[in-house]
This record gives sequence, structure tokens and C-alpha cells, in this order.
Amino acid sequence: MIESVNNELIKKYAKLQQKKYRMQEGLFIVEGEHLVDEACKREIVVDIFATYEYPEAKLVSDNVMKKLSGLDSPAHVLAVCKMLSEREIKGNILALDGIQDPGNLGTIIRSAVAFGVDTIVASSDTVDLYNQKTIRASEGMLFQINYLKRDLYAFLSDVHDTYKIYTTDVVDGCNIKEIMCQNPYVIVMGNEGNGVSEMVASLADERFHIPMSDKCESLNVAIATAIILYQFFN
Amino acid sequence: MIESVNNELIKKYAKLQQKKYRMQEGLFIVEGEHLVDEACKREIVVDIFATYEYPEAKLVSDNVMKKLSGLDSPAHVLAVCKMLSEREIKGNILALDGIQDPGNLGTIIRSAVAFGVDTIVASSDTVDLYNQKTIRASEGMLFQINYLKRDLYAFLSDVHDTYKIYTTDVVDGCNIKEIMCQNPYVIVMGNEGNGVSEMVASLADERFHIPMSDKCESLNVAIATAIILYQFFN
Repeated sequence: MIESVNNELIKKYAKLQQKKYRMQEGLFIVEGEHLVDEACKREIVVDIFATYEYPEAKLVSDNVMKKLSGLDSPAHVLAVCKMLSEREIKGNILALDGIQDPGNLGTIIRSAVAFGVDTIVASSDTVDLYNQKTIRASEGMLFQINYLKRDLYAFLSDVHDTYKIYTTDVVDGCNIKEIMCQNPYVIVMGNEGNGVSEMVASLADERFHIPMSDKCESLNVAIATAIILYQFFN
Repeated sequence: MIESVNNELIKKYAKLQQKKYRMQEGLFIVEGEHLVDEACKREIVVDIFATYEYPEAKLVSDNVMKKLSGLDSPAHVLAVCKMLSEREIKGNILALDGIQDPGNLGTIIRSAVAFGVDTIVASSDTVDLYNQKTIRASEGMLFQINYLKRDLYAFLSDVHDTYKIYTTDVVDGCNIKEIMCQNPYVIVMGNEGNGVSEMVASLADERFHIPMSDKCESLNVAIATAIILYQFFN
């Protein structure tokens, strides 16, 4: 059993709570049985730590688990994983232009899988996929999606001939309930405060808005994204 | 300027971070100019505190603001408010059966206002409306909704003759895209882990599910609620 928080391996892995070290090592941590199981299925697990008997796990004390975990109440098992590799794109795409909140990103990933998105393409200023809050909010669905980081303008320019590109426009967009969705699509969703950047929006073939009461100014971006994906899902 | 965190008024209001004291005093705190403005419009403000010149505000030091605030990075202005009073029900109702996450509750309130819900009826075990995370996620929309806490079974029994009651059922429910919505409605949404309790669900007139990919087991409850309200909104 590893009982010392000064163990070299523990000290190294504890640093993975910071994005900088995740990038440097190409590793990230998932916590809890469900996520550890999903990671094992994907064959990306490098090391497992648990406070009780768990297959293939190194046994650690509660204190060591607390050191490794990013959570106030650490799970009893966690896995150190290799970052997910990119797959070939073969289906509908959701493009994210600067999402900042890790909970929003995780919830968006969960909804994207639910409504048939194959690939998420995130701008370079989007919050980190491997943030603990993102991973938790995704409920394990980050293992089901093809996730790329790209310059969005360049990416959309490249796929413009083969994909129909949709985005939101609360002022001039048509009612989303009245448009026909064409597959394969790219749907571009913007930042929480500022929406889609102008340059990126200029590449859209069609713009829509979600009809709603004038009592409410806007929807949460994870909510708006889910509604659009739901509407386009057959 | 109030500079001492031991000032009696500051000590009293700082306790409002805890639900127990909010209930006892019938008071809660909102932070940031936008929410303070909205609270002023509703005429529920008892006291305003700010670290700069602000209409009607008591000037306080940064330290005092930190003591009053529930946030890691406190806003520069906050208001102590009287809890919102109940209005008469006159429209569509969203019933919440034991929502536990304050962010989910706030996001649900925002979507409910967006999609024409007049009244939210929450079971007694639903997370507190006046939790700072709920208030923030609602983006000020908590001031736009009629919010009641009730025993849901008793409430739904009472309104059963005048309202059509809908709920979710992922196993036997029909496809939500195929049902006609009847106004006024009550839509009952359940707890994050366990869904709607059996007794409450037994009062529903119609059950539906949201069609989705079999790669994903379930949606976040705030997402599912928004999609249903969107589908029912004309």
C-alpha cells in the first residue's frame, strides 16, 4: 500500500490536476468506478489507484487518494489515462467557438453523443477537455466522441464544400422549427458571453434562432446546443 | 465606510450564506449589478452593499465584501433581499421532484422562463432556490417565475382535473415528437439519479421519452427539461 504523499509516482500524477502538466505528459485522470471502467474499455489506462481491492489497482491510503484527486470528496478509485487520439471524421460535426465553462463543455459532449454527433471540433481557446469538471459533466461520454482542437476558420473553410454549415443568429436567423436539416452538418456554437466570432459566422450557410418568450434574453449555451441537436436528430 | 468584518450587520448578513439562516430570516443575497438591478425592480431589496459608489448602497471594504459574499471572487455590489412571495398560478406548470444540483435548478428556471412556464412547483426535497449557485445559473430569471414548494403528490392530485399532467418514461413513454401538447400543462421532471418517484408518476396522464442515440444512456436533467419545454412551446 502506498501511504506517503511524497512517493515520486504520486507526486508526479498529482500534478495532472494542472492543465500544463496534462499537456506536458499527455495524461489525464478520471475518477470513480464508472469512468475508470469506461477508460479500461478504451484501453487508454496507464495506472489505477484505489483505496480498496480493485482489479489491477495499486492500493493507496485515503490521504494519497486525496493528493491525487482534484475533488473535495475524492472517489475511491481513479485511473491515469493517455489522452484520447483523434479518429477520422465520418458524420455530423459540432464546432465549438470558445466555450469557457468546463461544466458546459461536459454537458455539451453528453448531449452531442445523445443526438448523433460524430465529431466535436473545438477552437483553441475552448476550455480543456480534461478538466475534472468537464469529465464529470460528460458522464463518460467523452470516450464516445471524436474530439479535435483546430483553428475553426481554417477547419470550416476546408469542409465548406462537403458539409452544410449552420449557426445561430438571434437577430436575423430563421426559426429553427421551420428549417430542414441537411446531413452531414456542421453546427457552430459560440462562447457563453459573446456568441460565435464574426469571422467564423461568416462561413455559415444558414442561420437560425430558437423561438422563445421575450421575458428571457438568452439560453445557457449547453441548453441551446442540446435543443438544436435534438431538433436535427432523426 | 464599513471596514470591520465584526460589524453586527455584516456578521448577521454573512450568515445568509447558510440555508438555515436564510429560512430563519426570510432573506437572501444576490451579487453583481445585473441581479441587484433586477431585485430593485422587484422591490424586495432590504440593503445594498458596494465597494464603490452605488445608488442607495452602504460603502464597504473589499474584506467586508468578501465576508458577505459566498463567492471566491466576490462581486463589487450585492443586495440583501426579502424572499420572493408566491403568486396565483395562471398558466403552464413545471413540477420538480427532488432536483439536487443547484446549477441544474438555476438552469431549469432560466429555460422555464424562456419557454413560457408560469409556475414552478418544487418538492420539499428540491435544492434551495436561494443557493448562490442556483441564483447565478438562473441569470436573474428567478425573479420572473412564480416558485412554490409543495408536497407534489398532494399538489398534482389537486390540479389533476384542470391540468393535463405529463412526465418522462424512458421505457414505456411515447416519442415526445409525436404527441400533441395540451395547455395548460403540468410537466413533472425527476431527480438526477432516480427520476420521478413512483407515487408522483402514477398521477401522470401521458408519458413520453426523448428519442436519442443508444450510445448515450441519459441526458442531464436540465437539458431534458429544456428540450421538453421547447417542444411544447408555440
